[in-house]
Amino acid sequence: MQAEKKTEKQMIKITLPDNSVKEFEPGVTGFEIARSISNRLAKDVLSISVNGQVWDLTRPIKEDASIKLHTWDDREGKETFWHSSAHLMAEAIEFFYPGTKFGIGPTVDNGFYYDVDLPDGKVLSDKDLPQIEKKMIELAREKNDIVRQEISKADALKTYTEKGDPYKQELISELEDGTITLYNQGNFTDLCRGPHLPNTSYIKAVKLTSIAGAYWRGDEHNQMLTRIYGITFPKQKMLEEYLVMLEEAKKRDHRKIGKEMELFTFSQRVGLGLPLWLPKGAMLRDQLEQFLKKVQKKFGYEQVITPHIGDVNLYKTSGHFQKYGADSFQPIHTPADGEEYLLKPMNCPHHCEIYSSKPHSYKDLPVRMAEFGTVYRYEQSGELHGLTRVRGFTQDDAHIFCRPDQLKEEFLKVIDIIFIIFKALDFKDYTAQISLRDPKNKEKYIGSDENWEKAERAIIEACDEKGLNTVTELGEAAFYGPKLDFMIKDALGRSWQLGTIQVDYNLPERFELEYIGADDKRHRPVMIHRAPFGSMERFVAVLIEHTAGKFPLWLTPEQVVILPISEKYNDYAQKVSESLNNSDIRAIIDERNEKIGRKIRDNELKRIPYLLIVGEKEMEENTVSVRRQGEGDKGTMQLDEFADFVNKEVREQLSAFYS
Amino acid sequence: MQAEKKTEKQMIKITLPDNSVKEFEPGVTGFEIARSISNRLAKDVLSISVNGQVWDLTRPIKEDASIKLHTWDDREGKETFWHSSAHLMAEAIEFFYPGTKFGIGPTVDNGFYYDVDLPDGKVLSDKDLPQIEKKMIELAREKNDIVRQEISKADALKTYTEKGDPYKQELISELEDGTITLYNQGNFTDLCRGPHLPNTSYIKAVKLTSIAGAYWRGDEHNQMLTRIYGITFPKQKMLEEYLVMLEEAKKRDHRKIGKEMELFTFSQRVGLGLPLWLPKGAMLRDQLEQFLKKVQKKFGYEQVITPHIGDVNLYKTSGHFQKYGADSFQPIHTPADGEEYLLKPMNCPHHCEIYSSKPHSYKDLPVRMAEFGTVYRYEQSGELHGLTRVRGFTQDDAHIFCRPDQLKEEFLKVIDIIFIIFKALDFKDYTAQISLRDPKNKEKYIGSDENWEKAERAIIEACDEKGLNTVTELGEAAFYGPKLDFMIKDALGRSWQLGTIQVDYNLPERFELEYIGADDKRHRPVMIHRAPFGSMERFVAVLIEHTAGKFPLWLTPEQVVILPISEKYNDYAQKVSESLNNSDIRAIIDERNEKIGRKIRDNELKRIPYLLIVGEKEMEENTVSVRRQGEGDKGTMQLDEFADFVNKEVREQLSAFYS
Repeated sequence: MQAEKKTEKQMIKITLPDNSVKEFEPGVTGFEIARSISNRLAKDVLSISVNGQVWDLTRPIKEDASIKLHTWDDREGKETFWHSSAHLMAEAIEFFYPGTKFGIGPTVDNGFYYDVDLPDGKVLSDKDLPQIEKKMIELAREKNDIVRQEISKADALKTYTEKGDPYKQELISELEDGTITLYNQGNFTDLCRGPHLPNTSYIKAVKLTSIAGAYWRGDEHNQMLTRIYGITFPKQKMLEEYLVMLEEAKKRDHRKIGKEMELFTFSQRVGLGLPLWLPKGAMLRDQLEQFLKKVQKKFGYEQVITPHIGDVNLYKTSGHFQKYGADSFQPIHTPADGEEYLLKPMNCPHHCEIYSSKPHSYKDLPVRMAEFGTVYRYEQSGELHGLTRVRGFTQDDAHIFCRPDQLKEEFLKVIDIIFIIFKALDFKDYTAQISLRDPKNKEKYIGSDENWEKAERAIIEACDEKGLNTVTELGEAAFYGPKLDFMIKDALGRSWQLGTIQVDYNLPERFELEYIGADDKRHRPVMIHRAPFGSMERFVAVLIEHTAGKFPLWLTPEQVVILPISEKYNDYAQKVSESLNNSDIRAIIDERNEKIGRKIRDNELKRIPYLLIVGEKEMEENTVSVRRQGEGDKGTMQLDEFADFVNKEVREQLSAFYS
Repeated sequence: MQAEKKTEKQMIKITLPDNSVKEFEPGVTGFEIARSISNRLAKDVLSISVNGQVWDLTRPIKEDASIKLHTWDDREGKETFWHSSAHLMAEAIEFFYPGTKFGIGPTVDNGFYYDVDLPDGKVLSDKDLPQIEKKMIELAREKNDIVRQEISKADALKTYTEKGDPYKQELISELEDGTITLYNQGNFTDLCRGPHLPNTSYIKAVKLTSIAGAYWRGDEHNQMLTRIYGITFPKQKMLEEYLVMLEEAKKRDHRKIGKEMELFTFSQRVGLGLPLWLPKGAMLRDQLEQFLKKVQKKFGYEQVITPHIGDVNLYKTSGHFQKYGADSFQPIHTPADGEEYLLKPMNCPHHCEIYSSKPHSYKDLPVRMAEFGTVYRYEQSGELHGLTRVRGFTQDDAHIFCRPDQLKEEFLKVIDIIFIIFKALDFKDYTAQISLRDPKNKEKYIGSDENWEKAERAIIEACDEKGLNTVTELGEAAFYGPKLDFMIKDALGRSWQLGTIQVDYNLPERFELEYIGADDKRHRPVMIHRAPFGSMERFVAVLIEHTAGKFPLWLTPEQVVILPISEKYNDYAQKVSESLNNSDIRAIIDERNEKIGRKIRDNELKRIPYLLIVGEKEMEENTVSVRRQGEGDKGTMQLDEFADFVNKEVREQLSAFYS
């Protein structure tokens, strides 16, 4: 009664993300708040965060709250959309296969799935999916409200015991006592924490993408369920674009192109997740490394080389040993008692030891120490994927040891390097994520509160100063410090996490790093960890998918292929090749005994930028007939002229980045 | 009696190393054979090999035999000399400290030592050595014959039991039954297998170099003995040269210069024998690697990159797991049952897996696969030494997979690469050692007799064809195949083992490597392992000691140092530095606030080839005043002119090697 009185008299305060405050009557819903802002927003909004928790748009808000409205452009908006879509799929499946029992139906990066136990041992195949899709669209068009219902744990358990669904019973029995929610739509009810869309009509386009087997709760001793993956969209056009993108992504899969172009391979005998770089891949990597080395030299970095193992005590000092524990590659024992080594999971401890190997004055700082350092981290075999998830990878690592007063400037310079790389590789679209500590879980992190606050402030200020478009995530920091991660969008619009910059007050403390200040006293430097590529493996994978293997001329492992018209001209082709190689141009010859038309067609597919055709006329005149991949005939050039032409193109590409 | 008759009637045949045969009366001695050849040889000869066993020069040869005479220039000659010198030292020690008990007194690379147990707890110091040296020379001048005496084991044991020498008793008791030899000289007798010099007068110069403690038989539970090291020479002048060389070697010690020049460091916390390459050392290494990469590219090599670990089963397949056992870094366990990895002790298994990753036709061969591959091998901490003996090192490794008919040609090309490197680094004096299997210990090696014979023949023929100056060592082959090792002499005349080439029929068998022949059938390729530098660590160490850190211009980490006359010209120095760096010249600035004379003196010591002095005049005219390290003033040059001048010098140095 008291609450109702309050309603009549007192409005509640709703704080928006821009910190503006609006007043509403108690019981206002997310949908109503959106409509109060604009009709457009009311049309687009999918769910609402209330004090950090995502709610249904239709759920009444009774007290003062901070809110954020979610649309398709937010992760939370998509999740709400796909979560309701999973229920919609379940409803359609129940329609066709009454008696189906349902496991879990979560969202994933691109859509959702539901694990189902079909009646009478029914097995689904790809052929069954279109009719389920069709039914989903039918049900969506019915515009059934999706209604939240709170019940007690006892009631929930009773309901599902009566239904005879062992999976939901198991899930409910594990929930904490208190209110449990069911969601109802049309004839379908599901146990679910929510949130959900207001009604099914938001879902305009459906694609069920695949079927797989999955053990209940991932345990191979349990019942095998049928997992059905799907994705839905608020517009038909978006689905069409997505399907085109999927098709293109399949063609660009770096594992496929890596094999076609002979860039890398894996061997079961060497071990899972341990890439073997083939000559062309190693060349590509070398070009990237040389490029970054040159950029870094301009920025005052110095290269070092350190071993791939370290004494276990080194990692106890750094804290890595405690962090990577039983889930990792285990310590390497030696014939000497108590002498144990660890495969290095990070390069920083070694770099700290180099810093410590001589005294430093405040005038020597910053020390910028770079290494293409290969590190090893154990991943479950199921998590491995091509070059994007491996067990051994080479970081384009560097550590900057600087005075606290140099921190922001150094941070800004690192951002500059990252932009040079994005420009050189034609990544035009990126966002930056500031990852801070979860203030509610401080025990997950090492280091003092004061140091964390200083480090977090430095990152936020540098981003502000650079005018970066950032998102901030609490709880996403590394265990030793906050960080700034760059996500790039590739040519297909997919997001990838690449470069990272991290501020660290902790390792200098643990390694007791020092410099002598202008005051002649000992001070502690600050460390910046940074890897603009992230890792060579992951970066090359992303680059392959971004470019479909058509790398820029300066980078591509084979820049020119020489096609002699017949075997008679192989010697001249050899001469051309040597001449180009002497001009630092990477050229190969197709000496096969094939017709020239066939040679041109085959080599057009190989993603080599220039094709040179050589025959009688070219040999006599010391020329080459030039074709640009995908552009066709470019006429005849003197051999020297062609070399200058290619080198000029490379020089121009590169000078745009680091002149 | 019968033997004597034979003597009268029949001469014995003595086969010399050049396969010529000379006849002598039975009982002829090595000394007599030498005199029959020349008086000069009779003067120089120190011992003789009879059917592969080294004998005293005075020991009668009673039957036909193959012999080789040894002088100071042979290892065997020096060993005989130093072995007798150890006895001479023992005799002198017994003179001063009667009752001394003697352990063992072997030869080492540069001289000999004797482990002694002095009476009454006497402790020797460096001050005691000169009088021992003096006594040794006195005893040598007595020209006492060194006489071999054969006795039975029982008699030997009796003699030393009476003498109360527990060490010799222990040694004798472990000898096989049969004839044991004593050697007598003057008043001194020692249990000894020999051989020895004819008399003490051969020893003309003595230097006792150091004293150390050593447990009897290297076991810390035993008595601590005093180990006295010494070296002797047949000429006083040779000792003097040796002492000068020692002094110079101390100055050139790569550990000392490495620290002075900030090339590398070690950290107890990272682990013993695991070098950390500092920026200048990493730059030096990078220059060497880039140089070799270019040479190898000309020779048709392709670079690959492989991980630093491999599944244990990979090394079981290769045989390395069986070879490196409990004495090595132990397997790395993982959270997955039975999934174990090994730090790679060699790169070959990974390269075999790359070879296997696609089919090969006879036309594709040879495949020449190169990698600067870092490998890890556990060494006892006592064996570690600077960069020459480490636990992690980077091989300039390559594996050539070829057809048997290509083997010799490929082997010859590898020899060519090794010569290019020796030339580039100014190593003028080298020998090549052919290491073959010990035919008496075949079980030590893996692989079939037939394959071993083919491989050994290929090496011997290639060396013949190249006209190499070789020595052949039985029993020095790798466990998987025979090899050719290059020993270079450095500027101080010391020998170092560097490059290696190995033929291998075994790994291709173990990895079931194949190619399709012209006959359309499957064939097995042959492998060549080769590393011209050997390892980057060892090579850099040798190079430092060879050049005393004064590396050639093309290689040295810092080519130019710019010395502004006062702080007023720091900006111009900065401009000069940037301009040089843009011309790929490695330049640094000495911005210290010091007088120019001081700056010149300090930087002359830093082994930087060019010193540029810049002041008012230089700044106005855009010039630099040039000094060449060790050569003084070279006049004034325009900035561009100087850059061209340096680049021309580098180009000329390099073009001499790989044009």
